[in-house]
Amino acid sequence: MIDDISIRYCDTFTDKNLADPILVVGLPGIGQVGKLVAEYMVHMLGAKKIGEIHAIYFPPQVILDENGISRLPRNELYLYLAENRHVVFLVGDFQSTSNEGHYLMADAYLDTAAELGVKRIYTLGGFGVGHLVSAPRVFGAANREDLKNEVSEAGVTFDRDEPGGGIVGAAGLLLGMGGLRGIDAVCLMGETSGYVVDPMSAASVLCVLSKLIAVPVDPTQLNDRAAEMEKVVQGLLESEKNQHDEELSYIG
Amino acid sequence: MIDDISIRYCDTFTDKNLADPILVVGLPGIGQVGKLVAEYMVHMLGAKKIGEIHAIYFPPQVILDENGISRLPRNELYLYLAENRHVVFLVGDFQSTSNEGHYLMADAYLDTAAELGVKRIYTLGGFGVGHLVSAPRVFGAANREDLKNEVSEAGVTFDRDEPGGGIVGAAGLLLGMGGLRGIDAVCLMGETSGYVVDPMSAASVLCVLSKLIAVPVDPTQLNDRAAEMEKVVQGLLESEKNQHDEELSYIG
Amino acid sequence: MIDDISIRYCDTFTDKNLADPILVVGLPGIGQVGKLVAEYMVHMLGAKKIGEIHAIYFPPQVILDENGISRLPRNELYLYLAENRHVVFLVGDFQSTSNEGHYLMADAYLDTAAELGVKRIYTLGGFGVGHLVSAPRVFGAANREDLKNEVSEAGVTFDRDEPGGGIVGAAGLLLGMGGLRGIDAVCLMGETSGYVVDPMSAASVLCVLSKLIAVPVDPTQLNDRAAEMEKVVQGLLESEKNQHDEELSYIG
Amino acid sequence: MIDDISIRYCDTFTDKNLADPILVVGLPGIGQVGKLVAEYMVHMLGAKKIGEIHAIYFPPQVILDENGISRLPRNELYLYLAENRHVVFLVGDFQSTSNEGHYLMADAYLDTAAELGVKRIYTLGGFGVGHLVSAPRVFGAANREDLKNEVSEAGVTFDRDEPGGGIVGAAGLLLGMGGLRGIDAVCLMGETSGYVVDPMSAASVLCVLSKLIAVPVDPTQLNDRAAEMEKVVQGLLESEKNQHDEELSYIG
Repeated sequence: MIDDISIRYCDTFTDKNLADPILVVGLPGIGQVGKLVAEYMVHMLGAKKIGEIHAIYFPPQVILDENGISRLPRNELYLYLAENRHVVFLVGDFQSTSNEGHYLMADAYLDTAAELGVKRIYTLGGFGVGHLVSAPRVFGAANREDLKNEVSEAGVTFDRDEPGGGIVGAAGLLLGMGGLRGIDAVCLMGETSGYVVDPMSAASVLCVLSKLIAVPVDPTQLNDRAAEMEKVVQGLLESEKNQHDEELSYIG
Repeated sequence: MIDDISIRYCDTFTDKNLADPILVVGLPGIGQVGKLVAEYMVHMLGAKKIGEIHAIYFPPQVILDENGISRLPRNELYLYLAENRHVVFLVGDFQSTSNEGHYLMADAYLDTAAELGVKRIYTLGGFGVGHLVSAPRVFGAANREDLKNEVSEAGVTFDRDEPGGGIVGAAGLLLGMGGLRGIDAVCLMGETSGYVVDPMSAASVLCVLSKLIAVPVDPTQLNDRAAEMEKVVQGLLESEKNQHDEELSYIG
Repeated sequence: MIDDISIRYCDTFTDKNLADPILVVGLPGIGQVGKLVAEYMVHMLGAKKIGEIHAIYFPPQVILDENGISRLPRNELYLYLAENRHVVFLVGDFQSTSNEGHYLMADAYLDTAAELGVKRIYTLGGFGVGHLVSAPRVFGAANREDLKNEVSEAGVTFDRDEPGGGIVGAAGLLLGMGGLRGIDAVCLMGETSGYVVDPMSAASVLCVLSKLIAVPVDPTQLNDRAAEMEKVVQGLLESEKNQHDEELSYIG
Repeated sequence: MIDDISIRYCDTFTDKNLADPILVVGLPGIGQVGKLVAEYMVHMLGAKKIGEIHAIYFPPQVILDENGISRLPRNELYLYLAENRHVVFLVGDFQSTSNEGHYLMADAYLDTAAELGVKRIYTLGGFGVGHLVSAPRVFGAANREDLKNEVSEAGVTFDRDEPGGGIVGAAGLLLGMGGLRGIDAVCLMGETSGYVVDPMSAASVLCVLSKLIAVPVDPTQLNDRAAEMEKVVQGLLESEKNQHDEELSYIG
């Protein structure tokens, strides 16, 4: 019988003795901000895949690549050796489809973090504000008061009111459940409309995270995608405005 | 692996030998009445925190305080030593998001009650009547006929028809499941519109409960909040009436 | 920890050695037909309560009696000794709120049936036709071809087309799952509009079932309730017709 | 207590030593294409039933045959001995009603496949395009690159863009989860409107599958059903068009 959640390391990942490792988590969510940032870093840094996570809490389907080759929904672990520390990335296709599954998966992620000796987690996400944002801020949350100063100094906003309700899904639970296990965790949320995939918001988060973990990542390609998306959105706004003007001219 | 439900006592809570303890349960619900009463009592009496409850049945998120510091959704246990008895309070952020979870959590609460020697439980809630209530009554329910007299004498209404259908969630299940374990339980429900958070209804419940458990609690601050909320509601009604009058004057 | 499903026999039920017992199951459903029939029989025959069933699959609430005394949602077992056989009745407040729970509860009912030596089960229900029915027929289903003749002769209709899709809930699953365990089971469904609680449909089912199990039950009180309900429905139809006529006269 | 999923072999199925067996899976889904193909093959080839699958993840009901005889929702296994290999068919009434159940059932199917020595699975389904299709193509997906050539040569389209999102349910999961167990799996999807049961799409899939597994099946009866369905659909389109013309003539 399958495990409800299975985490399998790649055969190539033999030396689990990591140097001062941190975990960066970017899973799907609002504006896909967290996923964009983490997958961009994996790509640009050439991080190596070290593991794969499957779960019965994912949507019951397979995903096809452009050649019609299937694979199960999964989350993946990647490893990058920076100057003097390892960075583990957790990225993937989906989060849990059930409430209970969210807790159980976050717990499994923390088992992995503990096994790899991770002492600090950064979870990445978007913070939807419901309107277009031209210079997206990065909002922060932490699971320990002492972490705030360091994070604030990197340009992160700790706002009394934002985000109001809380942080839903893995990006939030890893802070809460990590705290109970004595693992420091910080959530970085890029301000985003929440209407579209938002590389501009992702670029803001990348900039802050790079600074925080002292891992420089060239943001050019992400900025290019942001500029493209900007054009798409402007195009949509234009056509909407034109339509509105036409309607007015009918009336007039 | 995490427990589906975990109840952790604080390290400071070493002497579980309580004096004739009762349990007061005020969790979120209609008009937040039960939560208001219990949290107000904890605050005014300076009850000490003795435990914390986490569960995969809570919403999968963290809650942020005003400083951006996160914590898991939780229920909490507080302890107060009255003149000649201990009062344990169960308060918290949420109830279960699933039907089965409601049963399992109520069972866990009863395990705790049994462990602490609790022989009597008071669950607090609101009873939504769908219209504004100026002098909210307190309706009662009990899990044993013999409990009624005592409770009625404190000013609680046992009405043939109210509440009609039953009592949903922990406030109800603790009566039903408590009864099967031989633990007496009474539910006190403050009459409330159900439209807004209702400190006035909470004040009515507080008054009755204080009498029942012989623990005096100064209601001033709760009454103040009730007066404030009264003003808010009156303001809303005024503005609605004005709008209605304006509409009429258009017609006239 | 509580059991997901618990079946507790009453202390008074000591002799489980039953004479050729059959099980009659009337749980809530369409038109409450099955529940009406079984509870009426329990009442009229003075059957004795022998057990109680609780489950985390029921709605998470308590039910209050007219005195404000609570009890958990439950199903109940009653026993009646007819001339030469025992009749066990399964009645109750609810069915499962989840799909999986339906299967697990039906399995638990069958455990009980097996334990008590039951070789034949009658499940009772309503068959909703979506329009008022003046002389409700009783449709049948069985889990073995050989059972049909006997049931048909008691006045039950086995229609090629009705009920089309299948039988949902315990009334159906006990046939399907009973069959796998070698327990004969028949479902009797009273034709009903499905709009209201339908004692007239219940009376039809009672008449057939009485014949089938050779246990005469005076139907007078059920017929009285049917006549009352008939008046209520006629009243509703009248007032609807009047309203319609008035509207026409406005137009005319 | 019942198993969540039970797979029972028929007593007549004693020799599990199969010759180079493949598994063909046709369960309910879009246009019922997969179910139509597999059940047609079982019927035309006179495959023998060898097992039955029940699960608490199916809808909680029984299905009645035309005589009012009930049976549980089930999936069934059939066996056919072709010239030099065994073909096992998995067909049935339903798929899982829950996300988790989908994974658990696919895993159980794979247990069976492994037990029977299956090295290759064909899952069958429909691919809904949202408009009527006159010459339905067969789209393919595979869980290993190497399988593509062989499948393409049989006339299957591997399109960069279709099906876009993925393949939901057993037809997809058996590819993904089969791959993890080292079992080759191919999904064949008949192009279909998705509006109606579609024997024409099924005929296209049958033609391709017959070729792939070298098991000739006379398609005449399936083509006849396709022709009938074609008439029904044309009739609907006609009557819709007439109605539209009438409306226009009113206006004109």
